[in-house]
Amino acid sequence: MVKLIVHAPTPAALARARRNVVNLLAADPDAEIELVVNGEGAGAALESPDPSTDKYLLVCANSLAASGVPAPVGTRTVGAAVLHIAQRQADGWSYFRA
Amino acid sequence: MVKLIVHAPTPAALARARRNVVNLLAADPDAEIELVVNGEGAGAALESPDPSTDKYLLVCANSLAASGVPAPVGTRTVGAAVLHIAQRQADGWSYFRA
Amino acid sequence: MVKLIVHAPTPAALARARRNVVNLLAADPDAEIELVVNGEGAGAALESPDPSTDKYLLVCANSLAASGVPAPVGTRTVGAAVLHIAQRQADGWSYFRA
Repeated sequence: MVKLIVHAPTPAALARARRNVVNLLAADPDAEIELVVNGEGAGAALESPDPSTDKYLLVCANSLAASGVPAPVGTRTVGAAVLHIAQRQADGWSYFRA
Repeated sequence: MVKLIVHAPTPAALARARRNVVNLLAADPDAEIELVVNGEGAGAALESPDPSTDKYLLVCANSLAASGVPAPVGTRTVGAAVLHIAQRQADGWSYFRA
Repeated sequence: MVKLIVHAPTPAALARARRNVVNLLAADPDAEIELVVNGEGAGAALESPDPSTDKYLLVCANSLAASGVPAPVGTRTVGAAVLHIAQRQADGWSYFRA
């Protein structure tokens, strides 16, 4: 089964990443996906919610703290996106930088 | 043997990716390479052919349809770049985002 | 143990990558890290030293030659960043494009 991290560290990458997630789900509805946002991508994701892909969103807590953007209730976070992405690959996930 | 996906989702990344492919071939002439372009990288690749690397080019069909740029006869495509890249890594390929 | 390549091919990616390395070390002080810079990221790394992350720096020799920026004594280089990154993943390292 496809297991993929889609990574977006900038607002431009976030826009691409959301299209990538939609395209991946269309091609493989069973794909396991995490859309990991950090840096300026984290604030951008929270400021512009996207109903079609936000269920896959994982926000870097380090970046959130730095951005000052409040995370809505229910936002899923990881402590450090960079560590999470390293560990997922070690667990056999593929990686895609949008 | 080196098997590498070089991924370019933007025109700037495409320019870097083409240099990366040339450098990789110089360092390892036997490397197996796919230069996967999607998003705005797809249209840019077709609008500016590159004889030295186009034999490695794989264009995302989703992106092609969105760009409106006609693909020349012989252009190799993949249905969804994001799925192809996920699967290649699951098959043991390395990944490089230009 | 976490083994991660952090890749920065542009000055903007370099700025992100240096924060990523600091965050990774804070989350996992034992992580094995290489901060690989190529393209315009290589010249930027040498022109703006960063005492907190430069011990992890690996500079692409191809890019150095093209940039004309002299490498300080002690700078660690790899022949072709693209080949190094492909090989590291084949050896089990994870990859993070900043």
